[in-house]
Amino acid sequence: MPAPGARPAQAVGVDVGGTKVAAGVVERSGAVRGLVRLDSPRESGQALADTVVAAVGHLGEAARQLPVGIGAAGLIDRAGMVLVAPNLPWTRYPLQQEMRERLGRPVIVENDANAAMWGEYRVGAARAAASTAAMLTVGTGVGGGVVIDDRLVRGTNGLGAELGHMIVAEGARRCACGNLGCLEAMASGTAIAETAREWLADGRVPSDSCLAHHVELTGVVVGEAAQAGDETACAVLATCGHWLGVGIASVVNALDPEIVVVGGGVAALGEDLLGPAIASSTERIMGQAHRRLPPVVPTALGGQGGLVGAGLLALEHRA
Amino acid sequence: MPAPGARPAQAVGVDVGGTKVAAGVVERSGAVRGLVRLDSPRESGQALADTVVAAVGHLGEAARQLPVGIGAAGLIDRAGMVLVAPNLPWTRYPLQQEMRERLGRPVIVENDANAAMWGEYRVGAARAAASTAAMLTVGTGVGGGVVIDDRLVRGTNGLGAELGHMIVAEGARRCACGNLGCLEAMASGTAIAETAREWLADGRVPSDSCLAHHVELTGVVVGEAAQAGDETACAVLATCGHWLGVGIASVVNALDPEIVVVGGGVAALGEDLLGPAIASSTERIMGQAHRRLPPVVPTALGGQGGLVGAGLLALEHRA
Repeated sequence: MPAPGARPAQAVGVDVGGTKVAAGVVERSGAVRGLVRLDSPRESGQALADTVVAAVGHLGEAARQLPVGIGAAGLIDRAGMVLVAPNLPWTRYPLQQEMRERLGRPVIVENDANAAMWGEYRVGAARAAASTAAMLTVGTGVGGGVVIDDRLVRGTNGLGAELGHMIVAEGARRCACGNLGCLEAMASGTAIAETAREWLADGRVPSDSCLAHHVELTGVVVGEAAQAGDETACAVLATCGHWLGVGIASVVNALDPEIVVVGGGVAALGEDLLGPAIASSTERIMGQAHRRLPPVVPTALGGQGGLVGAGLLALEHRA
Repeated sequence: MPAPGARPAQAVGVDVGGTKVAAGVVERSGAVRGLVRLDSPRESGQALADTVVAAVGHLGEAARQLPVGIGAAGLIDRAGMVLVAPNLPWTRYPLQQEMRERLGRPVIVENDANAAMWGEYRVGAARAAASTAAMLTVGTGVGGGVVIDDRLVRGTNGLGAELGHMIVAEGARRCACGNLGCLEAMASGTAIAETAREWLADGRVPSDSCLAHHVELTGVVVGEAAQAGDETACAVLATCGHWLGVGIASVVNALDPEIVVVGGGVAALGEDLLGPAIASSTERIMGQAHRRLPPVVPTALGGQGGLVGAGLLALEHRA
């Protein structure tokens, strides 16, 4: 147990998602020890909060004094209040305050993509960046995180870096947020599935494509078909990759980051998505012939980025 | 003359645009003394640089020792090199280095919209903001500036905050930068003229609109017609205002600024543009029911924002 007032060498990181709550002890190096994963209950906000407390408890006695950082998939204000969260049963839920009371130690709560950005910036794919970086997490939705001048961009309300809700195709496909044409509506796992369904309805999927024979087209189905060499599936991914590149170009034109990290489950599809994304972003970046273009790279921390970043934020007292 | 090493109470601010070079002595309060305006020569980069030196020289003996801040309409890197500038005869022009040598004192060079943002943040429409703000300058093009954590967002190369080149309507109208559907292509003075021309070509301009009888439709013509009550002109402005709002929503979702300032010649059209912009941004901001929406306000410094901001940057040694 550290002496009172000493800076701890570890913290607890927690990632709260729609399907799992993961917790682990995070070292300064980013190494994770004693990972715990519990199913996310969906029936009530209280049940989900209980699961977070349980996951932290499972880390045992050695973790009991450590500060806690929580990354959660929602719109979270500077007081650690979850304002809205499409996939979590929390609305105006004072998560940080409740966890401080229940866990009896310092707790910080941050948006999960912001936490993942911090993890990548500190110990991951952007660790060589001097002071600026951006990240897009491409999964069911598209999350975002930005580091400027060595600090996470939180915004005045703490709602900063929702890069998935920059509008890239105003008037086009409906986004989960209600708007039309957000980056998320065009380049997420949901968008991949929707694109495949649109192509099928338009007769653009040949009968020899395995996409023609699925009862339910999901982003996973399309990704697996692409990895098996299905040309139509590859073309769907390329289309969504193109849109991802449009979003990356907007981020680069607006913020000029040193590096852009792409993470999330869909990004794991690799070159089929990232190749077209890099091509379409490169041609849309202002003055591309006169500047150093930022590398667009996959995450180094994978699915643990949010947990690692949240732990590091707690460790560094970046509340 | 200040004692050596003392912080000056004034600096010279210079605004270099495609038609005029303006210079003045800027006080800490933002007050400008001894304004000089010279026509911008277009024949060579050297002639334009000579004009900057002449404008500063016209400020007289009392200004001879003051540091100089220059805002210029171009893509400018961290070394004060103008990489490209659509309306200035400078390409890869080492403006900051040349001016330091010729003026024999500290000189900083910054993008003009970034300089205007800093002026508004320090002494203008965003002076009450605690630490974050964004600005769009709507003129022939659309420029941008962002303050985060009490600092201008410069980006890794110094090319930050080109908010006019966020892509809001991928595939739509061609932008001066070469891309399709940039905010600038949809919501600038150029876009207003282009929209009016498109409507005319499509037969959407009734013969009783004064837009039907102009040989050359420009943004100024449309603006004047709107202010004279021409309904079609008002509808054109509302369309471009809508697009401006889409851009504002993207900026707010990405950065969550405390306030958004709208400046530039086109913004002077006022409510005809800003009213639709605010309406369309409000409905596109994430979680609008759960957060404080940033006010969208006109500039306080008007056309002097770039000059004032550049002077203040020099005064504050924000090189």
